[in-house]
Amino acid sequence: MTTINQTFEKEHYKHFEGLMTQGNGYLSIRASFEEDYIEGQDDLYWRMPANVTVEKKRHTEGKFGTYIPLIVGNHPILREEMINLPYFLGMNFYVDGCKFHINHARNHHRKLDLKDGLITRYFDFKGIHIKTERYIHQVHKNLVVQKYEIQGDKDIEVESYIDYGVTTNGYNHFVETSYNLENGLHLNLLTDMNDEVEIVSRLSLDKTTSVSDPPYLMEKKLLHLKKDQKYVFYKYTLIRTSKDVNPCGIDFDFDKLYAEHQKAWQEKWDMADVVIEGDSNLQYALRVSIYHLLRSNNEHESRVAIDAKGAAGEAYFGHFFWDTEIYLLPFYLLTNPVAAKNLLMFRVNTLEAAKKNAKSYGYNGAKYPWESSVSGAEQCSNWQYADLEIHVGLDIAYAMINYLKATGDQECFNNHFLECIDEVLMYFMERLSYKDGEFHLKGVMGPDEYIHYSDNNAYTNKLLYEIMKFRIQYQSDTFSKKLLIYKDGLVIQDDYIIEQCDHFGDFDNLDFDLVWPDKSKPFGATISQEKNYRSKALKQADVLMLFFLYKDQYSKERMKDNLDYYLPLTTHDSSLSYIIHSIIMNWTCDERAYEYLEKAMAIDINYGAEDGIHIANCGGLYQGLVFGLCGMKVGANVTFDPKLPKNIRKVSFKYNHLGKKYQVDINHNGVNVNEIM
Amino acid sequence: MTTINQTFEKEHYKHFEGLMTQGNGYLSIRASFEEDYIEGQDDLYWRMPANVTVEKKRHTEGKFGTYIPLIVGNHPILREEMINLPYFLGMNFYVDGCKFHINHARNHHRKLDLKDGLITRYFDFKGIHIKTERYIHQVHKNLVVQKYEIQGDKDIEVESYIDYGVTTNGYNHFVETSYNLENGLHLNLLTDMNDEVEIVSRLSLDKTTSVSDPPYLMEKKLLHLKKDQKYVFYKYTLIRTSKDVNPCGIDFDFDKLYAEHQKAWQEKWDMADVVIEGDSNLQYALRVSIYHLLRSNNEHESRVAIDAKGAAGEAYFGHFFWDTEIYLLPFYLLTNPVAAKNLLMFRVNTLEAAKKNAKSYGYNGAKYPWESSVSGAEQCSNWQYADLEIHVGLDIAYAMINYLKATGDQECFNNHFLECIDEVLMYFMERLSYKDGEFHLKGVMGPDEYIHYSDNNAYTNKLLYEIMKFRIQYQSDTFSKKLLIYKDGLVIQDDYIIEQCDHFGDFDNLDFDLVWPDKSKPFGATISQEKNYRSKALKQADVLMLFFLYKDQYSKERMKDNLDYYLPLTTHDSSLSYIIHSIIMNWTCDERAYEYLEKAMAIDINYGAEDGIHIANCGGLYQGLVFGLCGMKVGANVTFDPKLPKNIRKVSFKYNHLGKKYQVDINHNGVNVNEIM
Repeated sequence: MTTINQTFEKEHYKHFEGLMTQGNGYLSIRASFEEDYIEGQDDLYWRMPANVTVEKKRHTEGKFGTYIPLIVGNHPILREEMINLPYFLGMNFYVDGCKFHINHARNHHRKLDLKDGLITRYFDFKGIHIKTERYIHQVHKNLVVQKYEIQGDKDIEVESYIDYGVTTNGYNHFVETSYNLENGLHLNLLTDMNDEVEIVSRLSLDKTTSVSDPPYLMEKKLLHLKKDQKYVFYKYTLIRTSKDVNPCGIDFDFDKLYAEHQKAWQEKWDMADVVIEGDSNLQYALRVSIYHLLRSNNEHESRVAIDAKGAAGEAYFGHFFWDTEIYLLPFYLLTNPVAAKNLLMFRVNTLEAAKKNAKSYGYNGAKYPWESSVSGAEQCSNWQYADLEIHVGLDIAYAMINYLKATGDQECFNNHFLECIDEVLMYFMERLSYKDGEFHLKGVMGPDEYIHYSDNNAYTNKLLYEIMKFRIQYQSDTFSKKLLIYKDGLVIQDDYIIEQCDHFGDFDNLDFDLVWPDKSKPFGATISQEKNYRSKALKQADVLMLFFLYKDQYSKERMKDNLDYYLPLTTHDSSLSYIIHSIIMNWTCDERAYEYLEKAMAIDINYGAEDGIHIANCGGLYQGLVFGLCGMKVGANVTFDPKLPKNIRKVSFKYNHLGKKYQVDINHNGVNVNEIM
Repeated sequence: MTTINQTFEKEHYKHFEGLMTQGNGYLSIRASFEEDYIEGQDDLYWRMPANVTVEKKRHTEGKFGTYIPLIVGNHPILREEMINLPYFLGMNFYVDGCKFHINHARNHHRKLDLKDGLITRYFDFKGIHIKTERYIHQVHKNLVVQKYEIQGDKDIEVESYIDYGVTTNGYNHFVETSYNLENGLHLNLLTDMNDEVEIVSRLSLDKTTSVSDPPYLMEKKLLHLKKDQKYVFYKYTLIRTSKDVNPCGIDFDFDKLYAEHQKAWQEKWDMADVVIEGDSNLQYALRVSIYHLLRSNNEHESRVAIDAKGAAGEAYFGHFFWDTEIYLLPFYLLTNPVAAKNLLMFRVNTLEAAKKNAKSYGYNGAKYPWESSVSGAEQCSNWQYADLEIHVGLDIAYAMINYLKATGDQECFNNHFLECIDEVLMYFMERLSYKDGEFHLKGVMGPDEYIHYSDNNAYTNKLLYEIMKFRIQYQSDTFSKKLLIYKDGLVIQDDYIIEQCDHFGDFDNLDFDLVWPDKSKPFGATISQEKNYRSKALKQADVLMLFFLYKDQYSKERMKDNLDYYLPLTTHDSSLSYIIHSIIMNWTCDERAYEYLEKAMAIDINYGAEDGIHIANCGGLYQGLVFGLCGMKVGANVTFDPKLPKNIRKVSFKYNHLGKKYQVDINHNGVNVNEIM
């Protein structure tokens, strides 16, 4: 199985902290070193609201990150955000009184094994050999296990600590803290949203505890090693919150625990893995992606979705976007329908908040927030996104309809999802403007956020049209009949080259080479927002998203011609962009398809994970493989129309469809599908 | 002469604090009571950026305000803001140990005499009669004088204090404070922008000083009164800053000081007053306006302009808007050309900042900030105004050209103003979009901020056109010739009913009675910004501003028909709106002209001054009188075309024109202009 390997380079430390994030869905922890390596990474400073794409974030060499996505706090400026909890994996070593620092390590190596999320680390320090292991337990969600093997002939002092001086985007969310050190490290916190968090950490040795000043709890042990003696000990940490449902009884037997953990991971991989023969780069990128999709999802939890950084960083404050429904959901739908259902149930659980949001704008129905947090209220501090990027409600409706098609789960759809769809449609009926027999959707931001204000955005209007159409056909009730007039009058951009929005042709033409000389920087960071907003420059796929979602309705030629029109205008400043292009290119037999797949593959792996994982792109890569390269199509039946590059000999994966499981093997000779009994 | 009279009502206390603000241009102080009357008005809280029109501000019963407009600080969120300095007028009275509070006063009365800005206050308390006077010296700009007359037969303790626990929009800008109490109250502050402020306050009595805990400096005196004995004493305060130019030597003789002060005020009023016979309401409103125009202007200071609240509150953070050039400047131009010149010199002094601002958007030339502070950098925290409301540079150019026309001061114009105009035009040449032989100004916010994003805003394009035209004619150099092609290709909205911007007709029609049932609230606070931005709803005059600035170019009929088209769409949420409507109505013989003048008169007086003075409306009222009612026109000659309502028997005022002074008297029989020798 695949591993992520890190040889230490200071400038990439923060990237590997993100890329090697561990987790079990309930809890995620960035892969910071155990020793206190970075000073001042969490100074109190207030991060200000800004357009995230072009934000100049505060640079720190490293960043602790311990996240339970259900535990959020109120940042005074940035609103509700996932709290960075205390870093409790802390462990320092003193050999002959000299504290270990990475700069004095020899033969240092660290790796994350994707198969079970175990991080193993080896290093030598002053003649001592140290091996460490750590993992977040996949079954006992509250448990984190660390194991240490030390070999040498020195006196060594080990120091276990919890650092609770951490902040989230520079803000301290802990309003009360208390601790005791009588039997290990025991920390209790109260957050500013009244959640209790308890952390208990213990070394499994006789202890000589010493107390340090908060916010740094410490437990010290002295080990007397003899030549070639190996010393093994463990650090167990339990983290619990007042939002937990089932505290679990744990039998603290390392071997038993690890076997249980491995088995749970193995079951996940068994259904989710994609095996690719002949392309190790793609195999690696895809497995890293699948690892993070598995690691960040709590399949039985419907009180949260998956945030834009997959709980591996604070860049998007732990907020949930349309990414969940359009980029992530297909992976879960195919590999774990229960997880897919619970992700959508999060939207059901926050329907009331979406209705309140609609009301705040003067509308009935539901306006799902552009940026959601646990509460379901709008969290976006840039008004233009919050007010105008209204397609998110339609994306949710689209995903719910997709869920019905893929699972056939009418009970859940009728009992839960249909109400959300109806409330979303209600909002849109009131949001439409009427003129001369036509309905217009004015003042809208489409997926391409570089045109912030437009009328009749092609993507948004089309989605609305299709969802109204579905609803009219799905159940013939009063409400569905009422939709007829809106649907039939709705303006749809339907020229052969589809205009992204009204008057798109009037936007300014740019000489990209002139205004964007250094393509290593985002376009949005090079040009002023003002000029950007009035120019033919796209952040990401917009019209192409229509083809992605409604492939059947467009000819290959039309897709291709639209691609050729929009591609030169597209900056790909968003990580959501490349993979859609790759998929459309695959469908139109464009030879650049693999090139764009590679661009998507590089996003996290090529030192892009500093502030967390681009989790939507992880889901995108999966879709790029199954829908793009393999040409999978999910309807009443599942079909494949693969376009494997020559070097890829074989692709194999499993999927769910209408309650059954299948194994598919694709090679250059054909497609072989078998139901798994 | 006119006075503002206040009989105490708790709910209007804050309004009178604003309306009776005293000042000499260098320093302004809100008319808070001297005793510590309001608790907790300045708790530390952070005011957040919001659209100021519809902001729900924190309500406090009262608000200290002590402002030297040159002294600004860095608010961590709201950027550069005028600092609320310590309140140093503090004075408490204890009679038989019982502290004076307004609730226990009898026969309380307070008035501000507009002729010299003296506040006099009378009250009885436990058988003691107290009269207080206070003023900010008009010649010795750093001096504030208070005088107390006490009569009775009790033991009275008086307590002079400085409260330096004040904040600005909830933020503390004082990074260092030190004090001593050896000889009165002596306070030194260092601000977060490194300005030093020194306040020395002294009672002119033998003293028995007692020290209280900071941030409250206190000096106490015990007076033993005998029956019917009158006790008179004085409190002098000097406030100095490191930005002061000429510290002045002062002879502390109350009578001499006051005479000097009165004389300076009298000279100001002599040139600025407008005498109206037959309309006491209009006379009152106009004199209150002129008082504040005189009070808030430091005629010899070109390092600041006049902020939107006339240094009588913090609502707009002490920022300078286009108000200065379009609403205020004509008053100074006619009554005090030196003051007018220095207001424009502020823009000359901040030209470099405006060039830097243009560069930050990728343009050459100068982009004057939508909200300026002392530094000249953009202060607006709402991007759409900062990025898009670009007409401010044109307003400045317009005002500079106006200055030339009214004063004939070619030397100043050629040496200082022309460069600003050229840099503004340079910016616009780069800001224009070219298509098919036409130049468009896209992505613009006009004066009407309720359409936030539009192409070819009529006002902005027309102003640009006229300023280019002027520049081409003014000096025939290379630069002016280059403008020809832009001017001739510039798209101008020139239908008979002038479209406010491209596609204005496509904006949604609103049923105002439906969406705005309670007209006592601003429209903008009733409707969501999202719906507002896509509807035919105007915040304030936009197309009408063209008629206001270029009256000669439009027929009365056309003005009237455009007025009739736009008026039903206009919400007047901005205080800049009514007076322009009144003026255009006067010019088109619309019988509603006086009704709209009255609406403008009510803005501050009718309990609207809580957060400061709507100083632009003060300048507007003056223009409403001279340009509207009196039909004054300033060109190579000055002409009058008065339309006095029947009840107004006579209007008299003085003005400057091309270096000479004139007196004009207007009645229903005609106009009489005399040069003042």
